[in-house]
Amino acid sequence: MSETVPPAVLTIAGSDPSGGAGIQADLKAFTAFGCYGMSVITALTAQNTTGVQGVHPSPPDFVEKQLRSILGDIDVHAIKTGMLFDAANTRVIAQTFRSHYADASSRPPLVVDPVCVSTSGHTLLAPEAVQVLIDELCPIATLITPNKSEAELLLSQSNRAAKITSLGDMIAASEKLLLLGSKAVLLKGGHVELTLADVEKLAAERPDVTVVREELLADNMEILQVNEQDLTTRPLVVDVLKEAERTTLFVSPRIESMSTHGTGCTLSAVIASLLGKGHTLLEATRQATAYTHVGIETAFPVGHGHGPLNHLHALTQRVIPPPTASNPHPLTRILIQSAAKTWKEYVEHDFVKQLAQGTLPRECFMHFIKQDYLYLKYYARAYGLLVAKSSTYGSIESATQTIVNVINEVRTHKAFSARWGISEADLAATPESPSTTAYGAYLIDVGLQGDSAKLIMALAACLLGYGEVGLWLKKEATKPNSWVKLKGNAYLQWIEDYSGEHYQNAVKLGLETIEALAVADPPNALRLQEWSAIWEKCTRLEKGFWDASMKLL
Amino acid sequence: MSETVPPAVLTIAGSDPSGGAGIQADLKAFTAFGCYGMSVITALTAQNTTGVQGVHPSPPDFVEKQLRSILGDIDVHAIKTGMLFDAANTRVIAQTFRSHYADASSRPPLVVDPVCVSTSGHTLLAPEAVQVLIDELCPIATLITPNKSEAELLLSQSNRAAKITSLGDMIAASEKLLLLGSKAVLLKGGHVELTLADVEKLAAERPDVTVVREELLADNMEILQVNEQDLTTRPLVVDVLKEAERTTLFVSPRIESMSTHGTGCTLSAVIASLLGKGHTLLEATRQATAYTHVGIETAFPVGHGHGPLNHLHALTQRVIPPPTASNPHPLTRILIQSAAKTWKEYVEHDFVKQLAQGTLPRECFMHFIKQDYLYLKYYARAYGLLVAKSSTYGSIESATQTIVNVINEVRTHKAFSARWGISEADLAATPESPSTTAYGAYLIDVGLQGDSAKLIMALAACLLGYGEVGLWLKKEATKPNSWVKLKGNAYLQWIEDYSGEHYQNAVKLGLETIEALAVADPPNALRLQEWSAIWEKCTRLEKGFWDASMKLL
Repeated sequence: MSETVPPAVLTIAGSDPSGGAGIQADLKAFTAFGCYGMSVITALTAQNTTGVQGVHPSPPDFVEKQLRSILGDIDVHAIKTGMLFDAANTRVIAQTFRSHYADASSRPPLVVDPVCVSTSGHTLLAPEAVQVLIDELCPIATLITPNKSEAELLLSQSNRAAKITSLGDMIAASEKLLLLGSKAVLLKGGHVELTLADVEKLAAERPDVTVVREELLADNMEILQVNEQDLTTRPLVVDVLKEAERTTLFVSPRIESMSTHGTGCTLSAVIASLLGKGHTLLEATRQATAYTHVGIETAFPVGHGHGPLNHLHALTQRVIPPPTASNPHPLTRILIQSAAKTWKEYVEHDFVKQLAQGTLPRECFMHFIKQDYLYLKYYARAYGLLVAKSSTYGSIESATQTIVNVINEVRTHKAFSARWGISEADLAATPESPSTTAYGAYLIDVGLQGDSAKLIMALAACLLGYGEVGLWLKKEATKPNSWVKLKGNAYLQWIEDYSGEHYQNAVKLGLETIEALAVADPPNALRLQEWSAIWEKCTRLEKGFWDASMKLL
Repeated sequence: MSETVPPAVLTIAGSDPSGGAGIQADLKAFTAFGCYGMSVITALTAQNTTGVQGVHPSPPDFVEKQLRSILGDIDVHAIKTGMLFDAANTRVIAQTFRSHYADASSRPPLVVDPVCVSTSGHTLLAPEAVQVLIDELCPIATLITPNKSEAELLLSQSNRAAKITSLGDMIAASEKLLLLGSKAVLLKGGHVELTLADVEKLAAERPDVTVVREELLADNMEILQVNEQDLTTRPLVVDVLKEAERTTLFVSPRIESMSTHGTGCTLSAVIASLLGKGHTLLEATRQATAYTHVGIETAFPVGHGHGPLNHLHALTQRVIPPPTASNPHPLTRILIQSAAKTWKEYVEHDFVKQLAQGTLPRECFMHFIKQDYLYLKYYARAYGLLVAKSSTYGSIESATQTIVNVINEVRTHKAFSARWGISEADLAATPESPSTTAYGAYLIDVGLQGDSAKLIMALAACLLGYGEVGLWLKKEATKPNSWVKLKGNAYLQWIEDYSGEHYQNAVKLGLETIEALAVADPPNALRLQEWSAIWEKCTRLEKGFWDASMKLL
């Protein structure tokens, strides 16, 4: 979510301390949809899942003050209103909005959830405020989102009385509500019992009406059918979206649940979030309906009454932080830390220390060079698998370049070995030690078993470890009275190779490739654990490789 | 996050309408750490990133009412307090907490952030309230989290005056603060300039002090070194955690940033979240420090002054909803919907329709049977790759069982073909059609290129598609005057095989395997798109397979 700037979205509503509704639900919904949430509080309430125990309204001038603090400083991408409580607050909000956005074309989308009565029956909007909402707020709204009783109240107050008991009533009511001046109306059907037969009948009569069956099975999904109940009689919830040019029905199965506290708040908050992100009203409503529906179905128990829906279901937590200026390699750092002890035993191996002091016995180094010659064949082949696993020419080219580098390294090996009296035939005739086979064959195994990410993890311990050894020795060598002896050291070339610019550039490229994996497709705990296990194993195999050379002593 | 019940975590603090601090920041932090957030509001403020424009305190009796609504209904796992504004509110909170949790052992962790003055210099805690905080709140706190000036104020108020300018001062102050009665003290070092030299000097003098260098490079990380600045002089932030039995320093690089609004609120909110989840105070502090640090570094621009840190950086949005009772197959549904047209052309293919009517020419069916015989060899081999890619005996066994099933299916093929006058030699000698090679070789390609999840996607179109055809024909056949002719249909066995219980059980198992992939490792948009692309391609190859049989006409 950190890649793009989250839109700033504002709720103007009451506070529900128990966290299920009001600005608390709105802020959770804004966060769930990657928005920057803000909230002007119109009233405090004392409430919980069993009901409303008290209301403490905010003075209208302080509502205005909160709103002006925000509008005067922050670029707001969408606004929703919820419980406004009284006429004065309703009026001051409408007037502040109009006066701040004097130019109507500069106004952000405004979603008005005309909250009038709580689920538990508590009046949340004074009767005289309803008229102010109709006169001052509806005309500037992008969308109003009444439920059945709110729609009936708004219509009766504006002399368009209508009882809503059928799908036809809902559509007729949505058309009348549009006359109150908002750009669109979402009439929520949670309190109107309907079936698929009702929807199909209406769809046949009204070909201008579009039906979105997001939560119901579409054609060619017989295999997904699990509910044996006759689809045509199964109870449904139908929300009607009335825009100037079209009518859309959002159809979903009705869920019997006690966890519906804050459903209306959440729905309008999600719509505002998605409008703030630039989605169309239709798409925003579709996603908001689906999100709210899953929120009810995945609700966890809270309190003793009507619990809240689950706002967390659409989120997962990143286990690797995004790269930042002070920590540009979060994944590599986690890998190293997760196997810190083995990593240290590898990069600060006695083999390395003796090599740096120039005291490493010749036969140990020769053993290493011969086995490394055999190992590098596996290593090149593993990069061949990486080529085969690539999905872009870029990754094909980069893995191929590494194979070319390995082949060149092997040439150096041969020249180097020749100087120490070992012929190419000697190299090829060397029996492979178990530690070489273990490491080499494991690379090939990972390459066959997993995706390219896993293979990159397997190949990293070698690439990065030799780079670490090179830099460490270089750093140690510059210290006064260093234990590292470069002068006259028979292994000087080896140290220079791995601390040199050429190899270190390959290390930098490798780090970038590794970090890019975590950014492009952030792993969850499970996948990170798989990656760490491969890294740890290869680190151990690297240590084993040097152990084998030292065992000759 | 929906797998376990999120702990309910409560903040008792002021409201920041601009969303960067106060209960708004706390609710965002609770959500980021997968907790169920609640909030008692002690005061409304009108503020933004440039400063505080006004404060409207809540009456103490209404603060108590909010708190009692929550405590009386909901099982609270952790509480944090922030801005309490005045003595009366501070007192009523401490007293309500004590009286509700009369048994001290039943008390949830209580983190007290002693907010006294805003970053912009606005007094957020009346001077007389400081004494109440010391006398009534500190003794029941699990942790208090003062910054330098709050620590100095608390100490001077309790006659332990101390100026804090060095790391030694910080540790001494944390020890004195512990005497105020909380179980632990986190003294935040944001306003004390320190370097690594200071930390190393202190660590040498005080071996009892543990240093956590979460955000700094540890040993054996030379390759991750990107900042050329001398580490020993680089400015650091050090937070001191003083517990009864130990002292821990959390060291991180100092970041020059304007986006620090709400840092203290967020830090204490995250600590409360993690204590609510059962983490130790040390681990909670470590994670909270790291989260807040990354939040500052990844902050996006909001407002004209001191903007908020980024609360969203640790979250990613799920692109596949969790399975629910009304939608137990969200991934499969998305796959089918993403390729709806091709899927329909496949499962309602003319080949299928003519077969169901019994009018399919014999030569078309023979072509299909012969090519299917050749295709099934690829299919079995692809499951062999799935065996090779397995990481558990369970998945090895399940993929192996499918190979056994395919071998049995091939036997049926042979017997079937024999009845139609085709010998096994004829089957084996049949030239492979391009559509067979395309489909078969693509399965093997996916199996070599990707991980087991991708291979399962590739294998699903065949398994599920034939199941869909079977169920569809069975359903159509039961309709009055159905176009499907079962009686006397030469292909009856084929229809019965794929609509039968044996095959449909395999379909159910396949659906479970597919859905389990999305639950175990929820894909992001990128990976879902890769999966959908494979599914769509195989759906198209299935259609092409039947096209080839019909082209004979």
